[in-house]
Order: sequence, then structure tokens, then C-alpha cells
Amino acid sequence: MRILVLGAAGMVGRRLVERLLADKELGGRAIAAIDAFDVVAPDFPDVPETITVTCEAGDISSAETVEGLITRQPDVIFHLAAIVSGEAEADFDKGYRINLDGTRHLLEAIRQAGEAYRPRLVFTSSIAVFGAPFEEKISDTFLSAPLTSYGTQKAISELLLADYTRKGFVDGVGIRLPTIVVRPGKPNKAASGFFSGIIREPLAGLEAILPVEDDVRHWIASPAAAVGFLVHAATMDTSTLGPRRSLNMPGLSVTVGEMIATLQEVAGDEVVGRIRREPDEPIRSMVHGWPRDFDTARASEVGFSADADFASIIRAHIADEEARQAKETGS
Amino acid sequence: MRILVLGAAGMVGRRLVERLLADKELGGRAIAAIDAFDVVAPDFPDVPETITVTCEAGDISSAETVEGLITRQPDVIFHLAAIVSGEAEADFDKGYRINLDGTRHLLEAIRQAGEAYRPRLVFTSSIAVFGAPFEEKISDTFLSAPLTSYGTQKAISELLLADYTRKGFVDGVGIRLPTIVVRPGKPNKAASGFFSGIIREPLAGLEAILPVEDDVRHWIASPAAAVGFLVHAATMDTSTLGPRRSLNMPGLSVTVGEMIATLQEVAGDEVVGRIRREPDEPIRSMVHGWPRDFDTARASEVGFSADADFASIIRAHIADEEARQAKETGS
Repeated sequence: MRILVLGAAGMVGRRLVERLLADKELGGRAIAAIDAFDVVAPDFPDVPETITVTCEAGDISSAETVEGLITRQPDVIFHLAAIVSGEAEADFDKGYRINLDGTRHLLEAIRQAGEAYRPRLVFTSSIAVFGAPFEEKISDTFLSAPLTSYGTQKAISELLLADYTRKGFVDGVGIRLPTIVVRPGKPNKAASGFFSGIIREPLAGLEAILPVEDDVRHWIASPAAAVGFLVHAATMDTSTLGPRRSLNMPGLSVTVGEMIATLQEVAGDEVVGRIRREPDEPIRSMVHGWPRDFDTARASEVGFSADADFASIIRAHIADEEARQAKETGS
Repeated sequence: MRILVLGAAGMVGRRLVERLLADKELGGRAIAAIDAFDVVAPDFPDVPETITVTCEAGDISSAETVEGLITRQPDVIFHLAAIVSGEAEADFDKGYRINLDGTRHLLEAIRQAGEAYRPRLVFTSSIAVFGAPFEEKISDTFLSAPLTSYGTQKAISELLLADYTRKGFVDGVGIRLPTIVVRPGKPNKAASGFFSGIIREPLAGLEAILPVEDDVRHWIASPAAAVGFLVHAATMDTSTLGPRRSLNMPGLSVTVGEMIATLQEVAGDEVVGRIRREPDEPIRSMVHGWPRDFDTARASEVGFSADADFASIIRAHIADEEARQAKETGS
């Protein structure tokens, strides 16, 4: 089978491709080819002989580029390509061009490929489709009322995905990812970055700044869980999904205080001592408008499963970092 | 003030322009000009001397056409232009071109006109943004999960309207109209047409076919109520609306049996005797997927009001028809 990954150079996209290369199969079918696409060409050093990986750079806001990718008729398409929240808010045109037009080009290219072609399309949406005021636990029938252009573009893409699926042009599944914690790598400028930072930095011997109170509650999933959602969405039986094709993924609802207490259990007092509380009013007020908890009965019914607990997320991050360092030091 | 009406040749658009011409003002400001636009040029014979009416035909799926309409910088824009449900379902491209691209062209033309220009935009959405399974009374926080391309295009337009409003490019209000009953004129091919037909045709001395059971419940508003919603949406204080800019309009939730009993009270046994029951399975199953009842607390709070009862809807229709006939016979 042939798989197309749009957004393959991102944190989740890269992990997904690595998992597919390790598994060598998807849903019981051997993987023959992976087309890894992003705005900068990704690079995968460990490719098994049985799989052809084609890494490409391009812009999904070009209809021709997207048509070109679809001419190879991939059996499964993972669409993770997006301008992130902050950039979509700062550059209105670019956000709509990539996050809305890009998705529409993809759906249209699939439709125009003809009736015999109906690939599985896994679209990564976001809990940013929701905007305050919320129910305390956001249910599967709660309205999408985004408070950002990014959330608007994701919500619109979900509607298109559902309509193109209903019409039989594609077999779409949208998954609304929780905030990914612990994100590896350097701190980024996302307002949600501190949720990863207060775990990642102290473990690496660095100071981390906590800009909000300990009782702030948030909805999270590990990078490995996110990849698990993607793989399940690509292989699940969609015949029981009905017309509502986007689902809230199961996550953990944890407070900052619980995260810190768990870090203390797993890694000790010295590590936790590297967290510095420095309240930041703009970040506090943004975080206040974010979802805190979900009722994900529907996702559980169709087989998506969450991380076991926050301690296992921390332990998995520690193991990942050790493996990465072992690799870098050439062992 | 200058007003632009997109879709001015339609049943509701025409009534809206007639009301504006009769009122000569909107929200306390004298109307100087009305631009009445539709795919066929509308025609308004009774225009007061103080108002300039410009009737134009064109296609809102052309960005240039829409830009041209916005260069006159109307203070209030009513956007009622749309391909109806059945046609949007049959012609996928045309539906997206008019109902989605048309709305986007309009929003973009307003944004591109510059920061100083921020008109009130009243967008007619539809209860077709909802799809079964429903709550028995659909609340203001129930998800948009349309089951038609038309409903999808309306839901996407609502999201765009909210985002362009949030960013300060426009002052948008979306109103989700109930099914309009009694529609005047000839029967049309809409699956919902019989809700009007079982009142209109018997009153005109004609037979009407009822394709569903008497216990079928539906959500309706009169043509006059719809025009009232539009005028209120154009003149209300939007500062209390918050980021959720589309509202379920208040309607009446009535069963077919209640409609017929009311017709009997108002017009007598002979009239009701002209309704012939002829069950139609495809229509029955479509109607089963439609919303039946709403909780419209939010719309009521901000001043929208429903028809008093179904009897007054019938009486208003009879009065409208008498006035129309009097005019046609030149009295």
C-alpha cells in the first residue's frame, strides 16, 4: 500500500512516519511506499529495504501541487499540514490559504480523481474548534465555536471532510487532538508551550517558567498517544461512524499542580525545584479560554484509547530522550 | 444610509425590500439608497421619491462582481443569496461556488475595503446546519452537523462570519431561519413544500397533497416574521452578542395535525376537505431527519420574537393574498 503524509516534518508527522517505517504495515497490509510531504522536505535515515520513501517539499495552498500528490493515488492519506495557531492569528491570509484552501485542494483533488478512488483520509483537527464558554466536560454534541482563526479553519475543514465523505468522495476521519505533552525539543513560542516546558526543561537540568496557577486544568495527550490515534483512525472500521466524522480524542484532564506532583514522584525534589513560578497575565487569560475536560465516550466506543496516566507520559518522555541521546552519541 | 440586499428577487428578499421601501428608514436612519442584487434583476414598482433603488443582476461567485457592489460602501448588507438545498445537493460545484465562495468573496471584499469600513452584515443561515440525531429541543449550544451540502455551506459561512467579525473586519449577525410557512405562490419542488401547500392550496380552492402523518412536528415561521428577524438583526445592539454570531431564530413548533386543526378553525371544513393524504416514503424519511423544536432563549434575550400562533400566520397569509389580488385587479 501507498501512504501520503502531509506535514511529515512536524513533531507528530515525523513520529508517525517513524512508526510506520518500524511497523512496515498498516492495518495488516504491507507498506510499499510513503510519500512524506511538508513545506521543508523531511528526512528519514532508517528506511527498511521493502519501503520506498519519497520526501518532498511544497506548498499545499497550490492546487497543482496537491493534485500532483494525489495522481499517485495513495490508499491512506494523513493530513497534518497546518499553520499553527499563533501564526494563523498573526497572518490572516496565510492561515486561510494553508489551513482552509489547502484542505479544500486536497479534498477536491481526491474527488476529481474519479469515482473508483476513495482513500481513507485522516485529518488532524484540534480542540481549538471549541471556544469558551464551555460545559465543564465538553460532550460529543457541543458546538464548534472557535475563538481563533486557526480553530475556525479546523472547524471548516471538519465540515468539508464530513460532506465529502457523505457524498462518497473520500472516507474521512477527523481527530481533535488534545495539547501534546511532553513535546520534545526546544521551547517554542506557543502559549501552551509551558505545559511541556515544566516537565521537559527541569528533566534536562534547565529552569522552566510556569506562567499560570497550579489549579489550571488542561486536556493533554502524549506524542505516542497522538500517533496511536492517527494509526487507529487510518485502520478502524468507519462504517459505524455515521455522518459525524470528527471525534474528540481521549486525553487526560490534569491540573498543573497534579503534573508537578507527578514529576516529583517520578524524578524527585531537585528536578521539581527547577520550576519557577512567574505569573503572566496575557498567558493566564488565554489559558482561561481553553477547554479543560472532555467526555470522549464516542471515541472510546470506536476504539481510541488515552494515555494510562501522567506518570507514564513522563516515563515515556524520559525513555525517548535517552534513546535520542544514545543515537546522537553514536551508540 | 445605503443598503445592499443580495438575493433581492427571492421570496424573503423581495418582501424585505418592500418593507424597507415602506418604512423609509432602518434603525432610525433614513434610507437614501437600496442596491437590490440577484441572479435575475429584481423589480420594485413602488419606490418613494426619497430612495434610489438600483436593481442589478449578477453572480456572487465572481469576486469582481462582489467587489463592485462593495465599492459603494453600503452601511447595511443583507446576504440572502443562495442556491437552495435541493440544487446544492444535485450540483455539488455550483452549491460550493455560490453558497461558500460567494459568502467568502463578500467577506473578503468588505475586509479589503479597509479598516474604516465595518458594515453590519446580516447573513441568512438555516436550521439545515443541524443534522439528526437531535436533542428533542435543539439548544443554543448544540453542534452543527449538517446532512446536506447546503447545510454544510451555511455552517461554514457562519464560521467565517464569526471569525471576520471577531477580527473586526465586519459586524456580522447570522440568523438561522425556520422553514417559512405559508410561502405564497405556486408549489415548488422543495421537500418541505407541503407544509405551505396544505394551507395555501386549500385556501385557493385547490387540492393539496399531504405526504406525511399528522403527528410530524416541524419548526416554522411566517414570511413576515422572517423579515422582522432580518430588520432586527440589522438594527440590534451587537455589543452583547459575544463571539457566537449566529442564532436560532424563534419559531413555532407545530405538528401537521395542529396545522390542519387551526386551518379548520380559521377557514372551515370545506377548505380542510381539500387536503388529500397520500403518504410518500422518500419525503417521510427526509422529514424524519429534520429538526422539530428549538430552545431559542438566546434569540429571545436579544430581542427576536416569534409569530404569536399558527392562526395568526394563516390570517396574515389570507390578508396578503387578498391585498395581492386587489392590486392585480387594479383596485
